[in-house]
Amino acid sequence: MGEEKMLAVKIVSHEGAGRLEVCEVARPAARADRVRVRVMAAGLNRADLLQRRGRYPAPPGAPADIPGLEFAGEVERLGEDARAWALGARVFGITAGGAQAEYVVAPESHLAAVPDGLSFEEAAAVPEVFVTAHDALFTQGGLRTGERVLIHAVGSGVGTAAAQLARAAGAGAVYGTARTPEKIVRAREFGMDEGVVVGDDPRAFAEAVRGWSGGAGVGIVLDLVGASYLDANLDVLAPRGRLLLVGTLGGASAALDFRRVMGKRLRVTGTVLRARSTEEKAAAVRRFGAEVVPLLARRSVRPVVDSAYGLSEADAAYARLESNATFGKVVLNLSPAGLSGKMAFS
Amino acid sequence: MGEEKMLAVKIVSHEGAGRLEVCEVARPAARADRVRVRVMAAGLNRADLLQRRGRYPAPPGAPADIPGLEFAGEVERLGEDARAWALGARVFGITAGGAQAEYVVAPESHLAAVPDGLSFEEAAAVPEVFVTAHDALFTQGGLRTGERVLIHAVGSGVGTAAAQLARAAGAGAVYGTARTPEKIVRAREFGMDEGVVVGDDPRAFAEAVRGWSGGAGVGIVLDLVGASYLDANLDVLAPRGRLLLVGTLGGASAALDFRRVMGKRLRVTGTVLRARSTEEKAAAVRRFGAEVVPLLARRSVRPVVDSAYGLSEADAAYARLESNATFGKVVLNLSPAGLSGKMAFS
Repeated sequence: MGEEKMLAVKIVSHEGAGRLEVCEVARPAARADRVRVRVMAAGLNRADLLQRRGRYPAPPGAPADIPGLEFAGEVERLGEDARAWALGARVFGITAGGAQAEYVVAPESHLAAVPDGLSFEEAAAVPEVFVTAHDALFTQGGLRTGERVLIHAVGSGVGTAAAQLARAAGAGAVYGTARTPEKIVRAREFGMDEGVVVGDDPRAFAEAVRGWSGGAGVGIVLDLVGASYLDANLDVLAPRGRLLLVGTLGGASAALDFRRVMGKRLRVTGTVLRARSTEEKAAAVRRFGAEVVPLLARRSVRPVVDSAYGLSEADAAYARLESNATFGKVVLNLSPAGLSGKMAFS
Repeated sequence: MGEEKMLAVKIVSHEGAGRLEVCEVARPAARADRVRVRVMAAGLNRADLLQRRGRYPAPPGAPADIPGLEFAGEVERLGEDARAWALGARVFGITAGGAQAEYVVAPESHLAAVPDGLSFEEAAAVPEVFVTAHDALFTQGGLRTGERVLIHAVGSGVGTAAAQLARAAGAGAVYGTARTPEKIVRAREFGMDEGVVVGDDPRAFAEAVRGWSGGAGVGIVLDLVGASYLDANLDVLAPRGRLLLVGTLGGASAALDFRRVMGKRLRVTGTVLRARSTEEKAAAVRRFGAEVVPLLARRSVRPVVDSAYGLSEADAAYARLESNATFGKVVLNLSPAGLSGKMAFS
């Protein structure tokens, strides 16, 4: 029964950095309200790197050893209760795992329609970072027009998505930080007004933000760094400011200054997508479909593809993401071309 | 011009614990949308203790040396633009300072009508703690029916207000902590379902909450203690839980565990009333008038007066609050009776 098989990236060892192989595995079945999608491209995420090392196990119900949290492709099969999509529809979406394979199964409510004019590679660079950035800035953070925003790791996938969304939503100013001057220069193409290179001393961005904002600070900080930036983040927030924690690259524990949090009435919110319930993910995808896809369709915001790799180059793709040299997203191409040949560019 | 004078509690020295005297000072004038209230009773707050020591200066525009953040009394004079109140109306409200005096001036939007059946002493025990607790639980915390709530310092003014409001709003369970068994026993009269005495080890309440909730944890923690409880607070919060910081009695800095905040998608919000703008205070008082005063009117919630003192006993009133032996609010009586005689009870 060859048609019931598929190719997939599989984690075959968690030791060291972990080891990946391309394997033939069983295709997942689409039942009830589930839809099976022929994946044409799948984005890479930091969680995939952690999962490869055995440090971020897939949640119950997700394939244990096939990474991949997002995909773009065509609807190939419908569960008996699936109503939302026609066969062949171009869709993108999020999943708790298993997207780096020829086929993935997802609830129909976790999919959105890919706008015309976006390639599958571009579309695969969208879901995780735009859903995460939109949810953080608007649903959790309540960004209002005219407010200033500071986005750390502004050259990352979430960073470039957030900068564009903040700009499109009428933010008063979009500030960013990055590790290299090149990323700051490029981020200006994606809505960032002012940026600063930050090394080991976060006071550098605190001083820069004070200068840019005339001492007023920012309404929202979108933080992908974590502990080492905490104090400076609280420092640059204006009264009633919101700190959204979406990553912990810079450590997982830091001293919280209660007087500052209370005196300025700040709000610190942790937010991750993967741990959410099926219903919560559906709600986030619904908002994404209603509030972000139209912006993508009219090119007010656009995917940022750092590089794309064929399936046989999965190792190189993971290495690229791990290098921190990326600007935007790393994507695996699983179309017929991506399955057969090499296609690395960067 | 004797009628332009009034008696007031005045901070005459900030040294040591600070020193109070009852002085004759000029009456404040009611202009524009301001209303002058003949104060019949004024509640004491911890901020008054800090202000007496010189560690919590009054904000700009508030009397520098007359403490008092809340009052109940009768409208005595109207500014030329004041429309909301008739002379003689029984009102209570909040102010940035100066309430521990025969007369206080406040924007008309910072007042609410005292329900029939509440004495002025009772009414003076209401505004700060009920506005703070309502704002924290509902406006900031978004408490929903069925959710479990943990209230620290449940025998305090804010604690007893919060327990009653949570109960009246259909919380799934109301848990509390206090320093003494007596406070736990009394808090059961005010809506608390389960309580625990906490000494120096906050793990005591974490274990208790796990047991009471069958391991589910709580949706909201209302914290008046601060740093020393932070870790255990994050521990007992259910996914998407909210930690509301309204006090820092237990220290002002503690390590924040980012993984826990992100993994459970927690929200930490600092909230103080005093630092808010005139407009924000008006909004909080409007919600208080619409959502709390009706509960007071039908006795679904009620003021908790620990003790009342005459004006000449202000020192004793402050000592009582500082003792931490209080259950509910300490009130100064500034009615004709309170001005002339002693009236301590406890």
